[in-house]
Formats: sequence, structure tokens, C-alpha cells
Amino acid sequence: MAEIWKGKPVADAMTARMREEALALKARGVAPTLCIFRVGERPDDLAYERGALKRCEAVGIRVVQEILPADVDQDSFRRRFLAVNRDPSIHGILLFRPLPPQLDGEWARQNLDPAKDVDGCTDGSLAGVFTNTPKGFAPCTAQAAVELLRHYGVELKGKRAVVIGRSLVIGRPVAMLLMHRNATVTICHTRTVDLPALARQAEILISAAGVLHSVGPEYTNPDQILVDVGINWDEARGSISGDADFEAVEPLVKAITPVPGGVGSVTTCVLADHVLQAAGRTL
Amino acid sequence: MAEIWKGKPVADAMTARMREEALALKARGVAPTLCIFRVGERPDDLAYERGALKRCEAVGIRVVQEILPADVDQDSFRRRFLAVNRDPSIHGILLFRPLPPQLDGEWARQNLDPAKDVDGCTDGSLAGVFTNTPKGFAPCTAQAAVELLRHYGVELKGKRAVVIGRSLVIGRPVAMLLMHRNATVTICHTRTVDLPALARQAEILISAAGVLHSVGPEYTNPDQILVDVGINWDEARGSISGDADFEAVEPLVKAITPVPGGVGSVTTCVLADHVLQAAGRTL
Repeated sequence: MAEIWKGKPVADAMTARMREEALALKARGVAPTLCIFRVGERPDDLAYERGALKRCEAVGIRVVQEILPADVDQDSFRRRFLAVNRDPSIHGILLFRPLPPQLDGEWARQNLDPAKDVDGCTDGSLAGVFTNTPKGFAPCTAQAAVELLRHYGVELKGKRAVVIGRSLVIGRPVAMLLMHRNATVTICHTRTVDLPALARQAEILISAAGVLHSVGPEYTNPDQILVDVGINWDEARGSISGDADFEAVEPLVKAITPVPGGVGSVTTCVLADHVLQAAGRTL
Repeated sequence: MAEIWKGKPVADAMTARMREEALALKARGVAPTLCIFRVGERPDDLAYERGALKRCEAVGIRVVQEILPADVDQDSFRRRFLAVNRDPSIHGILLFRPLPPQLDGEWARQNLDPAKDVDGCTDGSLAGVFTNTPKGFAPCTAQAAVELLRHYGVELKGKRAVVIGRSLVIGRPVAMLLMHRNATVTICHTRTVDLPALARQAEILISAAGVLHSVGPEYTNPDQILVDVGINWDEARGSISGDADFEAVEPLVKAITPVPGGVGSVTTCVLADHVLQAAGRTL
């Protein structure tokens, strides 16, 4: 039977610490502020937004919601985006992407003030993740996986880590974050040959494939820590579920993070932490 | 007996192609130009500079040498650097680093025009390497390793690649370049546990450890392609030598690149290629 490593204790500990930090910032005259910039009403965005609002309230971060209709034109979008981008009272901007097709997402990414890039999408942030310099911010979910491992006392130095998935929001950045902490990392993807054999070697397996139940018993070993970053719709359960076939692999590994209630619960904490850092840098 | 994959045939083929491209650019009114910016007289820099000058001459690239004394002050350095950085007749700048301690290397890196960053050291270039977008340029030596594999007809898709070393000039970028070409890449480093066992699994082993004779028979398998990017002083031979213990491993692998005469011979070609691309982008 594996230890089930939930995200809630991680989030609770981070929130308690961040609440103090927010108070300290306010005492110095800075009210840490996040702008949530959303175009349209995608259900995933709305769900994440609710989580972010709740977390920011718990921490003591002010939130400005900038919401535009799904059919907004580029000119109006551009005007509103530049206004919040310039506003010195806003320390971080969470821009939901992808944007609708009539809008230029690459323009937004390139023009987002790197200092406000709290979800790590600008070149500056990505270069910072690649070079291990504290400029910009890592993508929140990638960092959430690492915060969870840290909370549960995992020493990364010298560990064999295998990352499944090479996206820019999770796979690639989490691989870099683990490597900077001295793990030996293998990045696997759809073209990887004999993925289960590689995954079986992992002391730490991070699955960010985004494929329901793709990680089965043949991916595991008894000493493995399985961090499931997948968020997939499970028709049979009528709810979201991870990449791991949880019932099948849970008895076979040392520790596993559930979905829901695992890494996803830590993501908004990392977002809040980035806003506090961004606000602190303005002092 | 391994195939010995030398760099010269790769360099010859690239040079022939690039000569045509340089002529085509000139016919369109652009004289491709590299500025070599050197502070002091470090022997390694001088050796690389001689190679770059020879290659640029063979290709038909004009070279401007900007040479400052080792004890130049920041203000003079800054003035000269900004002058070439602004000069529209210069398409690429090779800045030898590290700079002497009285100069601000990070200032130079941050202010180098990304369009002229032909050795891939700016945030824009590094973000491009990480995100696989054609902005900026990859560090030349990292790309040279990949050009050599391409020349010798190696299909990277699905291959197991192990990279030894995680520097920003070779290890990390070459890992990304291989991954973008659909290899499954493991990045190893000084904290890796049982490195030989991991290296033995590699179909393509890239050694960029910079440690003389660190790669011995226990790192190899008979189907392995061993790309040796190490450049180390070999006291016993009185010359440079690679990371591989060449005599010991050469009989045990499928193919191996020698040092000297391997990847290093391709590096200045990649530099020249980047200058041509940078010049082409100004059209």
C-alpha cells in the first residue's frame, strides 16, 4: 500500500506562510495584487479561476478580474491588456491561454511585462527556468510538483527521475527544476520507445502525458514515487482523473499523488507565492 | 572496430553549401559580416579565433576583429560593445567569454542584440532552444554535435540519448536539440548515481563532461554512437584529447568522434551558418 501524498497539507502549509508574508508586505505599504485576465468563459478557465480567487483570499492577495467577451477584437484586447500590464498597482497577471483565434497570443506573450509573468510564459521566465537563474517565474504546475516533493521530504539529489511529457507548461520545465536540484532526469514523450521500461527505472516518475490511465503497473517499481500531473476527463467515473490507473498502481509504489486532490491543489499556492514575490520585488 | 566519424567531411559539405549562400546574399547586396569581439589574449580564444577566421574566409564572410586589452575598463568596453552592437553592417557578434573580472559579463549578455547572437548566449536564444522556436541561435558546439549526427545519417527519432554534462554551452542545449528531434534524452551530471550504467543504455552518448579519459569501456555498448565533445589537455600526449579513453573504447562501439578532429571541427561551420542566417534575416 502506497502512501497517498495529497496536495492539501502542502497547500495549507504554504498558505499559512504566505499569509504572514502578505501581512509583512502590507505593513510596508504594498498590497499584493493579481490580475486575472480572461477572454471568454471556458469551463477549465473558470474552474481554475475559482481556485485562484479562493487561494488569494485566504492568503490576503487582492485580485482584479479583467474579463473580455470571447469575440473581443484584437484592438480592444490589446488596449485592455496594455492597461493592466502598465498599471503599477498590479504585480502579477494570469492570462488564460490559448486565446481565441482572432487574438494574437504570441503578441500578448511577448508584451507581457516579465516582472508580472507569474505563470512563467514569457521568454525571460522560460530562459530563467532553463538557465536556473531567479529571473521570472516557473510555470505554476511544474513548480507545484516540486513543492509537493519538497513538502514530503524527498531528497532529489542523485535520484533517477523520469518525466512523461515535454510540454512547455509542465514536462520541460519540471525536468529542468528537478535537474537543477541534482536529480538525473530523462524526458519521455510520444516518440519514446518502450516507455514502460524507462519509467520502471524511475525513483521519481512524473506523469504529465494527459492520457487517462496511461500509467499502469508496468511503469512502476516498489520504491517509486509517482507524481501524477495528468488532468483527464474520466467518462466512467463522471469526474476528472489522472494519468495513472490509480487502483492498479497504488498497491505497487512507495507513494502516489491522487487526482483530484494532488498536485492540482498546490498550483494556485504557487501562483499566489509568485504574486507575493513579484510584489516584494517592487519594494 | 568502430567507424571513426571525423568532423572534416561534415565541415567540407557545410562549407560548400555556405559558399553558395554567401554569394547569393552578396548578389542581393548584403555582405555577411561577423564581428569577433575579444578582450585579452587567452590561448583558447586565440585558437578558436584562428579557426573562425579561416572558416569565414573559406565561406566568404567578412570578419571585423574588435580587440581590447585585458585590463580595459567597463566604460571603454561598453562604448566599443555598443558601437558594434548598433552597427547595421555587422550581422553577428562572437563575444569571447568569460570576460575579465572588472567587466560586467551579464550586462553584455543582456545587451547583446538578440538578432546578432550567433553563439546563442542571450535569453532570447536560450528560450528559443528550450521552446524549439527559430528565434535566436543555439550555442554553436551543441548544434555542431547534432550537425555531425545528421551528416552521418543518424535517425534521432525514438533513440535513447544520454548527455553527460549540463552546461549552458553544451549539455543542456544539446539535450534540447536532441529532444526536439524526438530522441529520448537523459541528462547526467556530477551528482548522477551510477553514471556508467546509464551511459551503457545509450544508443547515442554525448560526452561533454570536460574530464580527460572519464568515458571508459563500462560506458559503452556495441551499438553505441559516442560523440565526444570534451576538450581536455592531455599531459601524456602533449596535446588535447577528449573525454573518451579513445584507445580503450574505440573497439567497443559502433561509431566514435575523435578529439581533435571531431565535433570541434564543425563548430566554426555552425558559427558561419548562423552569421549567414542572421544576414539573411536583414533582407
